[in-house]
Amino acid sequence: MAAQKTKVTIFDVAKASGVSSSAVSYALNGKPGVSDTTRAKVLQVARELGWKPNGAAQSLAQAKTRRIGLILSYDPQLLAVEPYMMSLISGLGAELEEKDYSLLVRMSMDSDDEDSIIEDWVATSNVDAMLLLNLEIGDPRIELMKQNPQMPVLAVADASLTAGLPTLASDDAAAVGLAVRHLYDLGHRNIARVAGPEELGHSYIRDAAFSEVTAELGVRYRCLHTDYTPTAGADATKRLLSVNPAPTAIIYDNDVMALAAEGVAATLGVKVPEDLSIMSWDDSFMCEAAHPGITALNRDIVEAGRIAASLMLKLIDGDDVDVVEEPPYELRVRDSTGPAPER
Amino acid sequence: MAAQKTKVTIFDVAKASGVSSSAVSYALNGKPGVSDTTRAKVLQVARELGWKPNGAAQSLAQAKTRRIGLILSYDPQLLAVEPYMMSLISGLGAELEEKDYSLLVRMSMDSDDEDSIIEDWVATSNVDAMLLLNLEIGDPRIELMKQNPQMPVLAVADASLTAGLPTLASDDAAAVGLAVRHLYDLGHRNIARVAGPEELGHSYIRDAAFSEVTAELGVRYRCLHTDYTPTAGADATKRLLSVNPAPTAIIYDNDVMALAAEGVAATLGVKVPEDLSIMSWDDSFMCEAAHPGITALNRDIVEAGRIAASLMLKLIDGDDVDVVEEPPYELRVRDSTGPAPER
Repeated sequence: MAAQKTKVTIFDVAKASGVSSSAVSYALNGKPGVSDTTRAKVLQVARELGWKPNGAAQSLAQAKTRRIGLILSYDPQLLAVEPYMMSLISGLGAELEEKDYSLLVRMSMDSDDEDSIIEDWVATSNVDAMLLLNLEIGDPRIELMKQNPQMPVLAVADASLTAGLPTLASDDAAAVGLAVRHLYDLGHRNIARVAGPEELGHSYIRDAAFSEVTAELGVRYRCLHTDYTPTAGADATKRLLSVNPAPTAIIYDNDVMALAAEGVAATLGVKVPEDLSIMSWDDSFMCEAAHPGITALNRDIVEAGRIAASLMLKLIDGDDVDVVEEPPYELRVRDSTGPAPER
Repeated sequence: MAAQKTKVTIFDVAKASGVSSSAVSYALNGKPGVSDTTRAKVLQVARELGWKPNGAAQSLAQAKTRRIGLILSYDPQLLAVEPYMMSLISGLGAELEEKDYSLLVRMSMDSDDEDSIIEDWVATSNVDAMLLLNLEIGDPRIELMKQNPQMPVLAVADASLTAGLPTLASDDAAAVGLAVRHLYDLGHRNIARVAGPEELGHSYIRDAAFSEVTAELGVRYRCLHTDYTPTAGADATKRLLSVNPAPTAIIYDNDVMALAAEGVAATLGVKVPEDLSIMSWDDSFMCEAAHPGITALNRDIVEAGRIAASLMLKLIDGDDVDVVEEPPYELRVRDSTGPAPER
């Protein structure tokens, strides 16, 4: 990054040689379009100024694109709702920037589109490596990537879902333990969860871990699956609070649903945390800015993005990557959780 | 998009011809590496199956990259805070996807980095068009782009900042009028604003419009500039509420600061909207999910992203683009604004 900033550009060379920047580009890249005299002059000036080829020119020489592929398979109106993806992109971008790499982003509307983009990228070598997100159980993309080992790929998912592909893994089962034990220690014995879509691999992993941990502790547990939107989070909260006995604590699979739940509680006259404890999976500024502040499972997603980028760069260099663990989840206790009410 | 999904891929051709996908790629792209017999066979099968060149292959033929450049010049930890950028990317991506175009994303850490990336892109034709965001007053990037008219560029900014470059413009001054008049009609005569960074062009435009509108209406007006973070929003709120007489209404330049302000008010025992009305610039799910729901200036950022993408595609096709207006702001009145308290 620092090296990039102070370097001599093609424009500096153009100025010093008294020719256009296009002429410099032709000359430096060995393309036709300039006379031999101009070419010789440009090359001499470039040498004198200490010009070095930039990333794009280098990539031509190395037959690399210096691009990492990322497919966002979300409804465009939904994508903006969760801070997760922008955090991941921030981390990816920051790390890639230091290596003069770009992120090539496509937005697919369904899984057929996504397969088609992957096939294009593989067939045309349009990126040097790819990222796989939001894996489903038995995801067909895994087979596609295994058939094309020439394209480096990193999956961001629980290792049990990625069938031996290079993986950046988060330990969601351990985080479930953190969340449930926090509530258990506060006396809660009737816990509910408002989860994400059932078909997502990480929902499945969390579902299984929640069932196991709550059964082990003898805690009553119910779960509703949603599409992650605040509206769905609010509706699920109303449904859970209308059953008898209502849960004394609810864990939400993202921050916006937890925030929406605080609004529902306030409207219904349910006090947080006196009557109901609320927790969020994925901590964010929303959990901090909310009132009361929302207890959350925190992980450093920007850092995970950085790690993902560096692993892809390793793969491009031909190094082996097996399963690397993300930084572990931490519990951030705030005012939305408290002792279970006596009932 | 629909055309993309059902198309015959290079893999289908490989399967039907009984050769590898690399051989098909060589054959279809007229590269060495396959025998004349294989090439002839592959071409015949491709014709029979109705194979059409994909975007990347077409772009080779047309000397286009089918990429649009976007430079994110944010601190990576800050980028995740506001939904604006992810909404814009969602709209850009959705529109580009339909035209088989990609978004090439770089993350610059400062304006020198950004200039260097732009120079690289211009010199190497690494993208077919670029987007300019977050313009400052007298932004040097405008001069850079004017010197390189061969690279199509679209600025997303108030038209007064873009010196005649093709522009997607939002009418921030009109929105200031909407916001102030809403509060004025509710009886507020002492209004404050918690703004974004002073050096940003759109902060400047809003600053000027606020001064003008409030002076015209004879309303007392104060403004504090921040870095857009919830912490800064909370601090500014505390400072404004500690002066005497405190403002009866505060307008925040983004949603996360408005959300943080509701938390501060609750902590200080200041009732919203009875004691203090709160408004947000840039509506989002946070304004809806907050309690009380936050009155906000709403604009369709996903749609603005779509329009920006389509304008860049027009520029790439050689069409003229002057100044195009974004869909106008609308006021979404929620429970965080109410009649001014009597003092």
